[in-house]
Amino acid sequence: MEQWPYKSLFLCPRSVVLVGIPRKSGPGALNPVDNLKRWGYDGQINIVHPHVNEIAGLPVTRRVSELTDPVDLAIIATPRDTVPGIVRECGQKGIRAVVVTNQGFAEADSRGKELQSRMLAEAGKFGIRILGPNTLGVVNAFHRFTSSFMPHDREEVPIGLICQSGLFLVGVTQLIGGMAIVLDVGNACDVDIVDALDWLGSDERLRVIALHAEEVRGGKRFLDVAERVSRRIPVVALKTGRSYEGAKTAASHSGSMAGEDRIVGAAFRKSGIIRVDETQDQFDLVRGFVRLPPMRGPRVAMVTLSGAGGIILLDALERHGLRSAGFSPGTIDGIQSLSPDWMRLGNPIDIWPAVMKKGMRKAFGTALRDSLADANVDGVICIALALDDAEQAHLGAEEVIQEVCEDFDKPVVVWFYGSHAEEQVKKFSGQARALTVSSLESGIRVLAAMAGYEEWKTHGK
Amino acid sequence: MEQWPYKSLFLCPRSVVLVGIPRKSGPGALNPVDNLKRWGYDGQINIVHPHVNEIAGLPVTRRVSELTDPVDLAIIATPRDTVPGIVRECGQKGIRAVVVTNQGFAEADSRGKELQSRMLAEAGKFGIRILGPNTLGVVNAFHRFTSSFMPHDREEVPIGLICQSGLFLVGVTQLIGGMAIVLDVGNACDVDIVDALDWLGSDERLRVIALHAEEVRGGKRFLDVAERVSRRIPVVALKTGRSYEGAKTAASHSGSMAGEDRIVGAAFRKSGIIRVDETQDQFDLVRGFVRLPPMRGPRVAMVTLSGAGGIILLDALERHGLRSAGFSPGTIDGIQSLSPDWMRLGNPIDIWPAVMKKGMRKAFGTALRDSLADANVDGVICIALALDDAEQAHLGAEEVIQEVCEDFDKPVVVWFYGSHAEEQVKKFSGQARALTVSSLESGIRVLAAMAGYEEWKTHGK
Repeated sequence: MEQWPYKSLFLCPRSVVLVGIPRKSGPGALNPVDNLKRWGYDGQINIVHPHVNEIAGLPVTRRVSELTDPVDLAIIATPRDTVPGIVRECGQKGIRAVVVTNQGFAEADSRGKELQSRMLAEAGKFGIRILGPNTLGVVNAFHRFTSSFMPHDREEVPIGLICQSGLFLVGVTQLIGGMAIVLDVGNACDVDIVDALDWLGSDERLRVIALHAEEVRGGKRFLDVAERVSRRIPVVALKTGRSYEGAKTAASHSGSMAGEDRIVGAAFRKSGIIRVDETQDQFDLVRGFVRLPPMRGPRVAMVTLSGAGGIILLDALERHGLRSAGFSPGTIDGIQSLSPDWMRLGNPIDIWPAVMKKGMRKAFGTALRDSLADANVDGVICIALALDDAEQAHLGAEEVIQEVCEDFDKPVVVWFYGSHAEEQVKKFSGQARALTVSSLESGIRVLAAMAGYEEWKTHGK
Repeated sequence: MEQWPYKSLFLCPRSVVLVGIPRKSGPGALNPVDNLKRWGYDGQINIVHPHVNEIAGLPVTRRVSELTDPVDLAIIATPRDTVPGIVRECGQKGIRAVVVTNQGFAEADSRGKELQSRMLAEAGKFGIRILGPNTLGVVNAFHRFTSSFMPHDREEVPIGLICQSGLFLVGVTQLIGGMAIVLDVGNACDVDIVDALDWLGSDERLRVIALHAEEVRGGKRFLDVAERVSRRIPVVALKTGRSYEGAKTAASHSGSMAGEDRIVGAAFRKSGIIRVDETQDQFDLVRGFVRLPPMRGPRVAMVTLSGAGGIILLDALERHGLRSAGFSPGTIDGIQSLSPDWMRLGNPIDIWPAVMKKGMRKAFGTALRDSLADANVDGVICIALALDDAEQAHLGAEEVIQEVCEDFDKPVVVWFYGSHAEEQVKKFSGQARALTVSSLESGIRVLAAMAGYEEWKTHGK
């Protein structure tokens, strides 16, 4: 099928035609033209509508067959019965890439199934590839292009997203944390997750791919592509439809056969795909992979202001397959010398008594730097205070953490607690080598996933 | 031991003496007097210090033995070797409640163990009860009292907190979401978790208790008190030291024997205590129990704008022992009539096609109201959009959700997705019967815990 440059037709179209968009534009209209204009798409925008002459200030053509200029990509959002005919018109006009937005196809009823088949048959005659149906389509922030009728922000971040639902595009802030290139494969009647992995996985601007799949198919082709992509960048996958009811419903959502969950699990493990159990984990792991240097082993040092916090971390370490680092001789001497005599330090390093004696910066800096310098430590998690400015001037560690992290190529995650955590978290948003996490356990999950990925790259398969 | 009104001496002291506080006050000093003044504590504050005449504008007495007025509670933060002697002085002065703040006792070394024993021996001679050592002590926001040297905010919320670490007081915003009455039992050398449950569990102003325990002891006494409290209000417990390393470290943090985790689990189940696995769950569940009406069974209706979201919910339902509600005849007719013909609705109710046809308010209101009215539904989870104001005017459901919830005595949780979720979440903060959650899975965990609690109250033991 690859006689046409489908990847660039979909992801970097020089010209598009929108078929079946609303007459209105502006808030509430959910008109994809608004998004394209807001994003400054500089390709040619053609609009097809049978009844009006102008939409959002742009001229309108009556039918696809009446288009005069060449078009890379058609976005079709007309009632389902009209779609096979419009796909044929697209083929006759030389269009080879089509997004079908609407619901009501294989996921809906037998009529929908039939329409999806007819649409595919028409596409097959012309070598057209179809993305969808039941999709928001394609986003490429670098190309200032989106086919989505739902509003969303443009961000040039190194994050790719492959999904089977617009939920992840619209909810990107909650679910992923950012996205630049997106393929929502919807029902995946043609362009599927393997194509999407292939296309996004070779894009040099991406450093991580988030994957939402209701169905994983493709057998060896999936395994080959997934492994090739995983060798280059991490793929963090949320496979849904794991439960009996969830799998049944997936069939009526995207027409997916969710499949045996343990087969999916085995395929992910073999191909290096990092699986998450919950949406929040996908968000956390994507952030970790984008921001942190590699975690080259399972040995974690913990710097804590609270014994209780250290114990919570140890419980989480065990649950997620990491280990409390056994420090090399001498590593702990510096912070031990700052602590009261009765304090016997270990890992977690409880620095609070040292803080009381010698101040936050001295204690935190010593413990963090010495931990990171230890060859037996692969990554560090820190518990730090976030109080109001007046107290933070005495008890804040954010500056010393940032400073120390710069000198080491190891991941550091920081959990802030206290009345002013939001402010401290913001100070870290531009930081390269330390990542703030929303809970101690999520911090451990991030480090565990990162260690697992490196382990797979080194020893897997 | 209950010949003295220990509960009110600790929780509502009319007068306190602070022994061993810093000379300085203000930011960075960590002086508990600052907190008492800021909170407007209107009991008598006595300060004992051997070397200065005034601290934070208050007069200072040289020794406890030189105090002239009666004192309900002593807060001792002097070097560990001095503590047994000061406890004796307290006893001689008629003080019967003592908080020992500092570390360096049984959790530290053999000298610390010995000092803790001597301190207890002195206390025993006078009928003194000791809270700590290794604690921030007592907080009672209703009484405008805190013994904490760490700054924290005063909130009259119906939340009690029992913990073995100041982590939870200082990090209350992240870990619990609020607290009014707190007992940090620290090493629990005398006043322990059972006492704390007993005291807080009978306070009519509290509607939920959050418990952090590194050790659960007391056998039958624990079971009896915990069950009595649980029958009145939910106790949401994070038991740490579950892992091998965590348990070992608990011994050196609070001197705790973490114990066999499955015995703890059995004790919690028997006594109705709701156990959480992670800190974030404790935060979420406390909010749920404080804010929502009871969840009287396991049957959940789901109102979603996205098929994918519904599948994520179904997966989570199964994992957490809840069920997708089977609707009564007619329940779904209203929203079905608003949907396209090809749409076959079920539970989850995917209302997006109806939204496209009839608008958000009509579709959301119909699906939510009809679900809540169904006797086969025990609680509802909603997926709602949060966009900018202009779009939200068309696609926002927050008002209709709030309105409908008022008419039903069932819990509703709402997960907002989109670019402006924070704003929408804020609009819900004063809402009685709908709770916003940070993820779909956490919403299901809240409903599952609430259903489990009602199940225990009805059928447990």
